[in-house]
Amino acid sequence: MTDDHPAPVTVLGLGPMGQALAGAFLGKGHPTTVWNRTASRADALVARGATRADTVADAVAASPLTIACVIDYDAAQAIVDSAADALKGRTLANLTADTPERARRMAAWAAGRGIDYLDGAIMTPTPTIGGPAAVVLYSGSEEVYQTHRRALASLGGTSAYLGADPGRAAAHDVALLDFFWTSMSGLVHAFALAAAENITATDLAPLAKGIGALLPDIVDEFARHVDGGSHPGDESTILSAAAGIEHIIHASQDQGIDAGVLSAAQAVARRAIDAGQGGDSFSRLAEVLGRPVPAS
Amino acid sequence: MTDDHPAPVTVLGLGPMGQALAGAFLGKGHPTTVWNRTASRADALVARGATRADTVADAVAASPLTIACVIDYDAAQAIVDSAADALKGRTLANLTADTPERARRMAAWAAGRGIDYLDGAIMTPTPTIGGPAAVVLYSGSEEVYQTHRRALASLGGTSAYLGADPGRAAAHDVALLDFFWTSMSGLVHAFALAAAENITATDLAPLAKGIGALLPDIVDEFARHVDGGSHPGDESTILSAAAGIEHIIHASQDQGIDAGVLSAAQAVARRAIDAGQGGDSFSRLAEVLGRPVPAS
Repeated sequence: MTDDHPAPVTVLGLGPMGQALAGAFLGKGHPTTVWNRTASRADALVARGATRADTVADAVAASPLTIACVIDYDAAQAIVDSAADALKGRTLANLTADTPERARRMAAWAAGRGIDYLDGAIMTPTPTIGGPAAVVLYSGSEEVYQTHRRALASLGGTSAYLGADPGRAAAHDVALLDFFWTSMSGLVHAFALAAAENITATDLAPLAKGIGALLPDIVDEFARHVDGGSHPGDESTILSAAAGIEHIIHASQDQGIDAGVLSAAQAVARRAIDAGQGGDSFSRLAEVLGRPVPAS
Repeated sequence: MTDDHPAPVTVLGLGPMGQALAGAFLGKGHPTTVWNRTASRADALVARGATRADTVADAVAASPLTIACVIDYDAAQAIVDSAADALKGRTLANLTADTPERARRMAAWAAGRGIDYLDGAIMTPTPTIGGPAAVVLYSGSEEVYQTHRRALASLGGTSAYLGADPGRAAAHDVALLDFFWTSMSGLVHAFALAAAENITATDLAPLAKGIGALLPDIVDEFARHVDGGSHPGDESTILSAAAGIEHIIHASQDQGIDAGVLSAAQAVARRAIDAGQGGDSFSRLAEVLGRPVPAS
């Protein structure tokens, strides 16, 4: 196929992300078929030229490539179960977010039914889709990925193939969301603690962004430690981190603010200290987290 | 005083940060007196021109301004207790890290003994001290701060006076460290989860930095929500965050990785959802964190 003849694409699921995906395909000229349980969700896309299908099987039959993007894998599985025969010999690219294990199970389901399968993870918010900032990760059969690479590139930005293990995109997704949501939990807690001390969020924000600016160097330093299996505490140690975390827990308790998240972080640091690793870099905790928790 | 005649300064405590502080004063030409419980810690500074004092009282008597920077406020209090008479009529600037409440208690102690008091928080690591990247926050009497502003500026970078409440610098400190250490806990957890899926930290690092690059905009957006008391879930909601966090907890459990930190974060999100606020922005949790936890 050439850029002048974009391939037909089907999109199942028209939540905010599904609508963004379908809109990106339409914008790049792909004949786009859409389906959603609540059919009216397709109205705006149909007005832009999309074809509304009445059933999942009809939607799937319209295109060599079907994209699914729904709330979770239970929903995704129910939808594709209703069209397994129509999907046979075609490609299903499931961009629904879930765990690596769920991705592998759906890949096995597809393999058993003669369906080519890609599992994907969308790393950037809906407004980025179709533009240069979009990042979508894929894993599964490389041949299948290469077959549809041109169509998938219409989603914009960076389209990265990560390997044959269908769980690999989801594994990247959960690890990165782990960092993201844990950081967000810290941010709202910082605002809560500041508010209790009559510091406005607006006053704290520039300093919080200064903290955020420290992260890239630390990400690289910790990555070297983790991959090298060596965690030198030259610059700061788990012991000094634990002392700092203890102050924050006390300050939270002084103000009646829930300190559950940092108390859990402190418990991990304690496990390292109890194992004689208090003088190591905080990066050591990446390894401690995978150890069996000792019986108390 | 003029730049040509930098004022004498005393530094109590010569851990890595205390040594950096004393080194910065020496570098800017201040007659610098130092004291540490283990006297040999002063050797390198003495070689550079510092004066070693045998007792805290002797150290304090040498300068109008004494900086204390030790492991915690218990240690700081014990040290200054031994020299309260010598400190009378002089200024103690305590840059030891602890809670706002501890800062206020030490300010009250100082006021009762005729000692001028500033409480400070050092926001940047030791290598920054004396250079342009240093950030030190101060609170307490503005008159006392202004008296010593020139000397304190020798610590480099940004020297910010935050107000008369002596706990205010520490309050900023704990809120920012809260964001920092919670984010770091997320980073090491992301590396642990990635490693269990055979993704190296080096492979994950550029994507993790991409996540970090999203933070500044979110910090500003959440700050507007928190200060405005309005948390519209236009772009993402607590419900969708909770679904994502659930995936990460499951993926961690699948791999035998401790999920305590995110489970605690999930419990806070659940409190918002149970209160009917699941459709609000995640920023709503800054307010939820300060609510009394309902009896279960």
